[in-house]
Amino acid sequence: MKAEIFSIGHELLMGELTDTNSSWIAARLPALGIQVQWVSIIGDDQRMLTEAFARGMQRSDLIITTGGLGPTQDDLTREAVAGALGETPVVQDEVVRDLERYFQGRGQVMPSHNVKQALLIPSASFITNRNGTAPGWWTERDGTIVINMPGPPGEMHAIWEEEVEPKLLELVDDEVTITRNIKTMGMSEGAIDEIVSEFFGKENPYLGIYSKADGIHLRIIARSADAASASALIKPVEEAIHERLGEYVWGYDEETPEQAIGPVLKERGLTLATMESCTGGYLANSITEAPDSADYFKGGVVAYTDAMKTVYGVPSETIEKHGGVSQATATAMAKAVLEGLDADYAIGISGVLGPSEIEEKPVGLAYVAIVGAEAVQELELRVPPRRVVIKRRIANQALIELRKMVVAESPG
Amino acid sequence: MKAEIFSIGHELLMGELTDTNSSWIAARLPALGIQVQWVSIIGDDQRMLTEAFARGMQRSDLIITTGGLGPTQDDLTREAVAGALGETPVVQDEVVRDLERYFQGRGQVMPSHNVKQALLIPSASFITNRNGTAPGWWTERDGTIVINMPGPPGEMHAIWEEEVEPKLLELVDDEVTITRNIKTMGMSEGAIDEIVSEFFGKENPYLGIYSKADGIHLRIIARSADAASASALIKPVEEAIHERLGEYVWGYDEETPEQAIGPVLKERGLTLATMESCTGGYLANSITEAPDSADYFKGGVVAYTDAMKTVYGVPSETIEKHGGVSQATATAMAKAVLEGLDADYAIGISGVLGPSEIEEKPVGLAYVAIVGAEAVQELELRVPPRRVVIKRRIANQALIELRKMVVAESPG
Repeated sequence: MKAEIFSIGHELLMGELTDTNSSWIAARLPALGIQVQWVSIIGDDQRMLTEAFARGMQRSDLIITTGGLGPTQDDLTREAVAGALGETPVVQDEVVRDLERYFQGRGQVMPSHNVKQALLIPSASFITNRNGTAPGWWTERDGTIVINMPGPPGEMHAIWEEEVEPKLLELVDDEVTITRNIKTMGMSEGAIDEIVSEFFGKENPYLGIYSKADGIHLRIIARSADAASASALIKPVEEAIHERLGEYVWGYDEETPEQAIGPVLKERGLTLATMESCTGGYLANSITEAPDSADYFKGGVVAYTDAMKTVYGVPSETIEKHGGVSQATATAMAKAVLEGLDADYAIGISGVLGPSEIEEKPVGLAYVAIVGAEAVQELELRVPPRRVVIKRRIANQALIELRKMVVAESPG
Repeated sequence: MKAEIFSIGHELLMGELTDTNSSWIAARLPALGIQVQWVSIIGDDQRMLTEAFARGMQRSDLIITTGGLGPTQDDLTREAVAGALGETPVVQDEVVRDLERYFQGRGQVMPSHNVKQALLIPSASFITNRNGTAPGWWTERDGTIVINMPGPPGEMHAIWEEEVEPKLLELVDDEVTITRNIKTMGMSEGAIDEIVSEFFGKENPYLGIYSKADGIHLRIIARSADAASASALIKPVEEAIHERLGEYVWGYDEETPEQAIGPVLKERGLTLATMESCTGGYLANSITEAPDSADYFKGGVVAYTDAMKTVYGVPSETIEKHGGVSQATATAMAKAVLEGLDADYAIGISGVLGPSEIEEKPVGLAYVAIVGAEAVQELELRVPPRRVVIKRRIANQALIELRKMVVAESPG
């Protein structure tokens, strides 16, 4: 089944909002056996929208849209679908009553222009929207399906998961595509390429290799009649990768470094503390992105000046002798916060975020120390001298190395 | 001049990468007098691409594309433009020599498939790419301009700014559109709406009002023959807004709360320290996003547990008496770090990030304290109970309120 996606709205075309709906939807279609062949961002312009629907119905089996279902005159998605199909929208009284109840429940009177949201054409049925006033449309005619959903991601995601995806799963009997993403750090792209070379260059399962901010990713993509047989194609490749690269693998699929370290610490009842300079709070903020981080994260110090490092326990002699940006200082930072907060592990990071050099050390140079009760691991990193890259790369690597160290020391 | 934008690449269609190029470009076109009417994301499929170019040339004066200019067989943008125009690409020897030199400079031999990047059709000329091997194409035929740029944002942004935008500025003599975005916090959308009501509902300049994570934004959009006369249309509206809402205005255009506070502190020679719990490092990380934050940010403590708060100077009696999440504790946190780091101002934040309640206080409740040498400002905030929203809203508001307090205390 071939699909296209429209993201509809003037503010998307003006670049005032970046469209995230289309990639969110696109990422979910391969597993349903649906192939996306086109994504369009279209303004609130009835002529353009009608043309887009008419053209899309010719070349695709399925059109999925978000946006343009609100109550205002600018919201023209319904009108465009009706126009492309040559059908006339009629107000549905029972939906008007639902809308009135929705507003009553909020102690408000329904504005008269919301009646627009109760319009329907003969080929369409409503898709329930629990989180807003704009119901979706599900239209079928001449072998093409058109699905219109509201634009706010909070409303759209719920509608997709509860209403649209289950219905599509029943309809589509094409091949499904399943993807497994294996994330590694510590071995170069070239070395990995050689180690698993016999799996490259095949059609199904397909193996891809990608260099990312959190290491080298290996992505296995398999197509088959159903999910179980596609998974069976993935399994031997995944096992071989694991056998040969196991110690470098730190996560899977959408997992982030902070999500990968969390369960490892929590299961073992271990705690973590941090003292960071050049990452400026990025490390602590990443760790606390994980919902149950309060179970293992004791806290962190963002020591943005050398004076602050000494206030929180780094010996001033260490800084004087080795410099604020040095391996010795990074290790002293980790030890200071390990002891101060009575944690099981601590990460210390000292480096140069820029824009200027510090102590004649270049932007992008950083020293990381990971300290446990017994061992100390020290790393010297050189990352591209761009602010956001520096923070992200260093924090990622520190968390991934911490995970490796914890797993090695307490195999769980 | 009417334009459309194509973002080209299989990984964009699969939802593996979110397209940010098209909104980046779209945001830059109105000021050039160019109106975007369509954005398409298209896969590496020569038939689809050729159709897209042919269709785009019919309905638009300008097509701008990113992606598909690499050296591999999957990179088909050049082939599609040639196909849509019925022209035959020919290898340009001097560009082959440039490519060979590019690889030599990196101690490598040019792979033979890179010759593809030296192809050109008669209607096209090359656009120089300083940061990569893929030169762009600038094609003009039958009154339509096609601009093809490489996909990596680092390469594309430089090409746009150095090569494309200056050339477009010369060509376009349509009306230009200028936007001025005024950011406020502390007054409700309804109250602002009333105060500047006479400016709404007009075509030119147009005034829009938007509720965002960092407050209420007022956006003035003016169209005119040139930038100076468009600015003249904006000026009286901006002045009126400033007169009536001045104390609530904290920033303009793309400015973030951390960018707005930076110069205010730096100009006055003042320093800042933070102690945060529920924002988990987000506040410190935001502050250090500003490149010269080292000039005024002394550092911060991410006190993720009550024990850590006391280690770093919050009296344990305060926590016992009022709770870890309380106004008294937030104020004590700010005072502890103000004194400990000898800063001029300090922010303390204590609240509930979730997923669970703390001390029977709900997720999304937070107490903020901003402390200077003299004054203390205390705020109780209730924000939507979603992790990323909580962190962002609270950090934004703390920085905006700090700015207001600093400006009031030292008018500069």
